[in-house]
Amino acid sequence: MQFASDNAGPVHPRVMDALMRANEGHAPSYGADAFTGRAVEALRATLEAQAAEVFLVATGTAANALLLAAMTAPWETVFCARTAHIEEDECGAPEFYSGGAKLTLLEAPDGKIAPQTLEAALREAAGRGVHQVQPGPVSLTQVTEKGTLYSLDELRALCDIAHAHGRRVHMDGARFANAVAALGCSPAEASWRAGVDALSFGGTKNGLMGAEAAVIFDPALARDLAFRRKRGAHLFSKHRYLAAQIGAALEDGLWLQMAGAANAAAARLEAGLAATGKVEMLHPREANILFAAWPRAIHQRLKAAGAAYHLSGDLREGDPAEMLPARLVCDWSARPADTDAFLALF
Amino acid sequence: MQFASDNAGPVHPRVMDALMRANEGHAPSYGADAFTGRAVEALRATLEAQAAEVFLVATGTAANALLLAAMTAPWETVFCARTAHIEEDECGAPEFYSGGAKLTLLEAPDGKIAPQTLEAALREAAGRGVHQVQPGPVSLTQVTEKGTLYSLDELRALCDIAHAHGRRVHMDGARFANAVAALGCSPAEASWRAGVDALSFGGTKNGLMGAEAAVIFDPALARDLAFRRKRGAHLFSKHRYLAAQIGAALEDGLWLQMAGAANAAAARLEAGLAATGKVEMLHPREANILFAAWPRAIHQRLKAAGAAYHLSGDLREGDPAEMLPARLVCDWSARPADTDAFLALF
Amino acid sequence: MQFASDNAGPVHPRVMDALMRANEGHAPSYGADAFTGRAVEALRATLEAQAAEVFLVATGTAANALLLAAMTAPWETVFCARTAHIEEDECGAPEFYSGGAKLTLLEAPDGKIAPQTLEAALREAAGRGVHQVQPGPVSLTQVTEKGTLYSLDELRALCDIAHAHGRRVHMDGARFANAVAALGCSPAEASWRAGVDALSFGGTKNGLMGAEAAVIFDPALARDLAFRRKRGAHLFSKHRYLAAQIGAALEDGLWLQMAGAANAAAARLEAGLAATGKVEMLHPREANILFAAWPRAIHQRLKAAGAAYHLSGDLREGDPAEMLPARLVCDWSARPADTDAFLALF
Amino acid sequence: MQFASDNAGPVHPRVMDALMRANEGHAPSYGADAFTGRAVEALRATLEAQAAEVFLVATGTAANALLLAAMTAPWETVFCARTAHIEEDECGAPEFYSGGAKLTLLEAPDGKIAPQTLEAALREAAGRGVHQVQPGPVSLTQVTEKGTLYSLDELRALCDIAHAHGRRVHMDGARFANAVAALGCSPAEASWRAGVDALSFGGTKNGLMGAEAAVIFDPALARDLAFRRKRGAHLFSKHRYLAAQIGAALEDGLWLQMAGAANAAAARLEAGLAATGKVEMLHPREANILFAAWPRAIHQRLKAAGAAYHLSGDLREGDPAEMLPARLVCDWSARPADTDAFLALF
Repeated sequence: MQFASDNAGPVHPRVMDALMRANEGHAPSYGADAFTGRAVEALRATLEAQAAEVFLVATGTAANALLLAAMTAPWETVFCARTAHIEEDECGAPEFYSGGAKLTLLEAPDGKIAPQTLEAALREAAGRGVHQVQPGPVSLTQVTEKGTLYSLDELRALCDIAHAHGRRVHMDGARFANAVAALGCSPAEASWRAGVDALSFGGTKNGLMGAEAAVIFDPALARDLAFRRKRGAHLFSKHRYLAAQIGAALEDGLWLQMAGAANAAAARLEAGLAATGKVEMLHPREANILFAAWPRAIHQRLKAAGAAYHLSGDLREGDPAEMLPARLVCDWSARPADTDAFLALF
Repeated sequence: MQFASDNAGPVHPRVMDALMRANEGHAPSYGADAFTGRAVEALRATLEAQAAEVFLVATGTAANALLLAAMTAPWETVFCARTAHIEEDECGAPEFYSGGAKLTLLEAPDGKIAPQTLEAALREAAGRGVHQVQPGPVSLTQVTEKGTLYSLDELRALCDIAHAHGRRVHMDGARFANAVAALGCSPAEASWRAGVDALSFGGTKNGLMGAEAAVIFDPALARDLAFRRKRGAHLFSKHRYLAAQIGAALEDGLWLQMAGAANAAAARLEAGLAATGKVEMLHPREANILFAAWPRAIHQRLKAAGAAYHLSGDLREGDPAEMLPARLVCDWSARPADTDAFLALF
Repeated sequence: MQFASDNAGPVHPRVMDALMRANEGHAPSYGADAFTGRAVEALRATLEAQAAEVFLVATGTAANALLLAAMTAPWETVFCARTAHIEEDECGAPEFYSGGAKLTLLEAPDGKIAPQTLEAALREAAGRGVHQVQPGPVSLTQVTEKGTLYSLDELRALCDIAHAHGRRVHMDGARFANAVAALGCSPAEASWRAGVDALSFGGTKNGLMGAEAAVIFDPALARDLAFRRKRGAHLFSKHRYLAAQIGAALEDGLWLQMAGAANAAAARLEAGLAATGKVEMLHPREANILFAAWPRAIHQRLKAAGAAYHLSGDLREGDPAEMLPARLVCDWSARPADTDAFLALF
Repeated sequence: MQFASDNAGPVHPRVMDALMRANEGHAPSYGADAFTGRAVEALRATLEAQAAEVFLVATGTAANALLLAAMTAPWETVFCARTAHIEEDECGAPEFYSGGAKLTLLEAPDGKIAPQTLEAALREAAGRGVHQVQPGPVSLTQVTEKGTLYSLDELRALCDIAHAHGRRVHMDGARFANAVAALGCSPAEASWRAGVDALSFGGTKNGLMGAEAAVIFDPALARDLAFRRKRGAHLFSKHRYLAAQIGAALEDGLWLQMAGAANAAAARLEAGLAATGKVEMLHPREANILFAAWPRAIHQRLKAAGAAYHLSGDLREGDPAEMLPARLVCDWSARPADTDAFLALF
């Protein structure tokens, strides 16, 4: 009953196999190896973006922080959702890597920024003088932190607004695979064709050991990223092992199979929870995360049985009938039997 | 004939096995897993330092930069060898992580700072006022970038001088294992017992995939490191895979076996080169790196045969008899047959 | 009809005289002169704080940024009003000087943070882990950007809340003189006796040429400020001219006379505006700034007649009867005749 | 007997008069006043550089740090003399403002970088890869910290070398006036016509109260400087008083008259010292600074008589005949009688 996070799950066996295969003899370090060349080409092909610049790193925060630093002057601000990972869960990494830029927090019901919210914020910022922090890029999270998705139409609308104001668009795609699998579109449609200028292409939450790709569609932004990555201590010497992970994920569509499995597991869980009649959904479940509330007494039973998930509120004190909210995340390895056992405790 | 770098070599099979074993089901993320707890305890035991704080990261530059940032105010300077990795090969990571501190470069024949050099530098810096950058920590590299070693006596002398001036000591131990194996001392003697306050404990160059430990012996320095690591985007979500590597290295002395094998291979190579009568050694060979010069014509023959190593100077142009310097590094996987084939080409 | 800003006004003649008197022969540079010693002592006496550390600078932004940097780790956040100068008018100086700290914006009707707002924010931040930016100091502006004042009771309540959560308090006192004059209390009561740990003591907006004092009541915070000031390029070589200004301001209570005159001028203006029957006050007028709205047609008449003040909204287009908001600021040199001429145009 | 520093001297009466004249009524703040417009135009005319961008600040360190930050990426290094003010006397301000760039220290006998030294350093840096800090601008100090001058030929040679390597040139002209007066050339010849891309135009050491101009000849560099200045807290609200100083200096050649007087006083002092037969000159005296050594016993006599200057070495202990080095600086207000009294003590 493992629903704590998709980064608590194991690495897919095919990825482990790829690591074993990469572990033959010597290979040039720092990305000059053949595995890296192939992984980068595979990612370009997957994204239908032959000119994209790709930089592999090991954490999603590194991908986000490096890309945002390349897009944001120290005296600029990043427009993002109040709930964004870059605001809430990176201990100020974007501020550190950018040399002290700000984040401007936009209201985001269900984790999503509405076009009119973005338009209003960019319009307000347009007239700023030398005393004010200047407008910088827009950062969108897909899948959002609330488990919802921007539709392609919504995504295009937001990118169009950003571009109309001369702002570039970054996508935090820690769960980009889950988004593409859920939207049923091409990776290109979900990114640069919609107007995304730079993408944090996530892998770690999707069955890899620790591998992400910072992808830049606008080559003008790429010039300095190699220096930023090295200076940030994120250039791996044994680079082939990062590359082997990304390469394995992209081979025969494994990345979308894993994401699809995670999404399906979450859908199955959602249906089961709904069937109990005891659960209130807090946000639409559109990928592999769901937010729901149910009575404290049931939480106590689940936790006692060893179920792993994040819970807001105190398990021990108060009314057993009080509804306490929880976050449940499924990864590629979720097993139906686990879900059934979980649901049976309701 | 692979002598380019110890980070070009493969991961030891026992480390790969440990990664496979760690890949069972779910585990708490960000270091709350059991593998991490065990690896940290194993490292403390190895170092005979129960109170040491240990932070795992994936690159040596991260370990160095995070530790130095914790030890150095932005208006301070780090005293290090002119040849130090932190000066020459990290693209300014210490400057970045410290918020703009300086490095003061000390002359270091054979890569080693002489006690009187350090004493003179610290004495000069002692009388500085508000206009000058203030003295910060001393950083020593062991094994040095020139392949030499500080003896325990030399190390203690340097640490004593630093402490007498109120300065802390950082050790860049990217090849700490090779040093301990070569010195034949305990890890504690080679670090905190000699006066080292913080140690970058290297693993990647010694048969791991990408795992290092930032070790702090003085708990006062540890307070902020968790924030610095997270903010630098170096806190791994699937932390168990970092921990499994360190754990495997420390199990049954594997780390010292690997380092010893690398050192022995370099010693064998050195003896073979000496026997050719055509080679000039440039620095004493004391661990797994050697610097030597030989005629251009032989370099041409070696390179043509596929030998991998770093060469200073132009292979193609000039006198065939001209002596060109090279750097050769052995890792744990070095094979005698390879060395023999290499030597046969002389 | 000069109501644009109190930094648009002239320097008081007694301050100019002091500058002339300071301009005799040579004097030690960088603050070792006698003028500086006397000014610092005068400020300590004025604040009844003999142990306070005082650092003179030339801009209010420098005082704020240096003090906040000394109080805030790079991974911390400053709690301040959404309308604070440090958020809206310093182009990110606090972020720059702190090495990338954040600002957490609190709702502040009439420019004032309510105690329960601060309490809620600090309580929310108390449970944060390593993934989140950590709570740092609280920054209060007195006089606020909306021209209002925290009463001594309100100030004490806010400081008590901050301290109860282990947070220090910074006061942006660009108009501290106006606040003290309006509150009728002692400077000590308005600062450290209420719980303020560090004060930006403003002078430039109050009849000086360009001189502010960064005052630290808690000596633990002062240790690094000399380095921060120098490194920020804010240590003046001809320091006597900064000191002479502060010294002149504090002599015979000139600073409070100037602030009192500015406050009185604003009160007179407020009364006159009220008497026109055409003006809506937008915030309580409590010191030397007032916010009010009146019909566009009157704005047009005032601007045509050369009145200087800040206006929100477009003067030229729209309904002549539409109420447009304005900000009016009085300085020490405000003349009743000017105010009368201004009012006559209503 | 005031030879401690040219920043210990008084402000010229004509500059004080200009400040008094500027102190009439209200003026727009932050540089929108008429004094600023006129001062900028006067500086452009003086430098024969109509397209130059000019930013006024109050300290020389601010001018240097802001210009260097605009010219240097965080992962680049500034090439400068080992004796440069930016290295020795700014507490790391260039590192702070640039976000952690380095300084590469070049040997500089008599304070001057030789062309072949610069050529060798830039050639060495040309082949650097992603692991190394990248080459940035060259910074030259004119008058040097050792009181010497680059001739126009030397200056052009250095700038040509820098440009041939694609590097821009910054001039720290804290004593640019003294250099121009001594060289007898035009300000344009001493700066952009020789190849200087950005100039810290000093005023404070040359009879002003605290005013410098950061001048950018290459408009591409100017884009961000306004934000950097504001964010660094160096944008003055009562900007007219900075502008009035620069304006007064440039009116009727006052700046060169003051610098010429300082140079002449130093020449007179040099001649007098030579005539004593007891003094050894340490560097050529070419402007208003001289370095010389004489016996400890004479130093004791001079200091006892109240002479102010900087002395290296301990006045009290040791052989009375031992030669101790001193630095003597003359400013515009130096009086022959003072010099005579000083010399009489030999």
